[in-house]
Amino acid sequence: MKDTVTQIPTYEDMLAAHERIKPYIHRTPVLTSSFLNDVTGAELFFKCENFQKAGAFKVRGASNAVFGLSDEMAARGVATHSSGNHALSLSYAAGRRGIPCHVVMPRTAPQAKKDAVRGYGGIITECEPSTTSREAVFAQVQAETGAEFVHPYNDPRVIAGQGTCSKELMEQTDGLDAVIAPIGGGGMVSGCCLTLSTLAPEVAIYAAEPEQADDAYRSFKAGHIIADDAPETIADGLKVPLKENTWHFVSNHVTDILTTSEQEIIDAMKLTWARMKIVMEASCAPPLAAILKNPDIFRGKRVGVIITGGNVDLDKLPWMRG
Amino acid sequence: MKDTVTQIPTYEDMLAAHERIKPYIHRTPVLTSSFLNDVTGAELFFKCENFQKAGAFKVRGASNAVFGLSDEMAARGVATHSSGNHALSLSYAAGRRGIPCHVVMPRTAPQAKKDAVRGYGGIITECEPSTTSREAVFAQVQAETGAEFVHPYNDPRVIAGQGTCSKELMEQTDGLDAVIAPIGGGGMVSGCCLTLSTLAPEVAIYAAEPEQADDAYRSFKAGHIIADDAPETIADGLKVPLKENTWHFVSNHVTDILTTSEQEIIDAMKLTWARMKIVMEASCAPPLAAILKNPDIFRGKRVGVIITGGNVDLDKLPWMRG
Repeated sequence: MKDTVTQIPTYEDMLAAHERIKPYIHRTPVLTSSFLNDVTGAELFFKCENFQKAGAFKVRGASNAVFGLSDEMAARGVATHSSGNHALSLSYAAGRRGIPCHVVMPRTAPQAKKDAVRGYGGIITECEPSTTSREAVFAQVQAETGAEFVHPYNDPRVIAGQGTCSKELMEQTDGLDAVIAPIGGGGMVSGCCLTLSTLAPEVAIYAAEPEQADDAYRSFKAGHIIADDAPETIADGLKVPLKENTWHFVSNHVTDILTTSEQEIIDAMKLTWARMKIVMEASCAPPLAAILKNPDIFRGKRVGVIITGGNVDLDKLPWMRG
Repeated sequence: MKDTVTQIPTYEDMLAAHERIKPYIHRTPVLTSSFLNDVTGAELFFKCENFQKAGAFKVRGASNAVFGLSDEMAARGVATHSSGNHALSLSYAAGRRGIPCHVVMPRTAPQAKKDAVRGYGGIITECEPSTTSREAVFAQVQAETGAEFVHPYNDPRVIAGQGTCSKELMEQTDGLDAVIAPIGGGGMVSGCCLTLSTLAPEVAIYAAEPEQADDAYRSFKAGHIIADDAPETIADGLKVPLKENTWHFVSNHVTDILTTSEQEIIDAMKLTWARMKIVMEASCAPPLAAILKNPDIFRGKRVGVIITGGNVDLDKLPWMRG
């Protein structure tokens, strides 16, 4: 039984999104590290969306949704549920347009993310840290406000916006053999699939996922969506399940999904901070962890690595845990 | 009484240094932050030497010294004493030339810095954490090896190399009203003075220093070098005193030296990590701390801020302290 019809954005939607959002986003830099190239035997190109406006790639999709609204729809505001970065991003984009943004967030989300949402003017309603609770509380908020729902990843406007990231990455590099991005709900990976399947179909697309939240991996192997309620992982942006629109892209265009342990994620995160001198979230670390864990797949290849966000609670770093 | 004759590098020395070291260094990016611009009322341009080879600007001066040696001198290797980043940088440069590098370091230097020196092939001899001990142990090492001494900052080859940083900064920005850099021994500040006094004499040059290691500030006000033995500050790269060659530049070209408390340094460091998503040392934070503390000096100005290095012990972050 399907309760949602898939709405698949096109390559032209992605191109239109890029023109629409350019005034509100950064064209983030691509960094390299000779140390990490030596360690992996690959040539890695890190697309640094941790330097993006609102600290994450999600501002691309959120801005595309917000600035694509008619004035009449925009006046009622936007609303979403999110583990954090989509909430920041939608609040930022709504603020740039001067409209309200209603956000349902788990009460367990990092305090730094809640503070940042409020800093961008977002109005938070808290829910329990499960998909079930989030969806119930959200329905209530939406009914009360009449705001336009912008799903964190299953929205075609959002997927088209996320696709602009790999368009820039291809423009900033001289050809790639593969791209690898973390996968939670699949918004960034779907954006990569949307863009690369037309712009550079020779590029293999890998997704990296925590073992402890491996629903996308199991979905990919089973051939249909498997959704877990409230998995636990340090990569807190990757807990959410695939939905119809992202499943379309993942099932049709992803080469493989690679999983990594919590310790591998923490080690890759700390290694990136130490050697690349950038602040990135645990949710960004599975791709490098997967490359380090599967050297035979990537050795000798030119690999784009999406660093998805940098909104970290600096008082709670994972390697500081007992 | 002076025991050293000043040796002042020229603007042409700096230009020659840039040509000499370009193959071995990064042209580091200049980043901006609309958040920090809003907070300070200034337009800030962060020259990110934390992304530099070996993780610090010091690779500029070290590379200029190493690659300027005759083959005969180079064969005996190089030697230095350093609180850390010059040691890394000289080891890196010596490694690129294939010659030995002897390093005298305080036994209290962060373990991460010792590991990194050894990672670049440097040979460490430990000393006590005082200027007196460092110089005594170093004399012994130098006598035994015959290696060429490359002082961390009082060496004219080193100052000429550091001057290449502000040359790049001016090329990467469309005019500046001021530049501000942290001051310890004065190598980076002297490099800024060397370059800007010829290239852009209209640019005011500020130095920022920890209150707890304010020997440069007191020297500047007194009109002669005042040296403290082993001051204590979280900004561990800024503990060393001015020497003759750096005093020349500081006394002739610096507009003012601004001091900041330990807490102001920690707050500015954490703010930079949180908002700019970059890993930088506590020793890089006094400039932003000084701008936040003295808004009237910088408001409405275009200000270059030198982020000097990113070699941090991630297991010992200052805001984690009791």
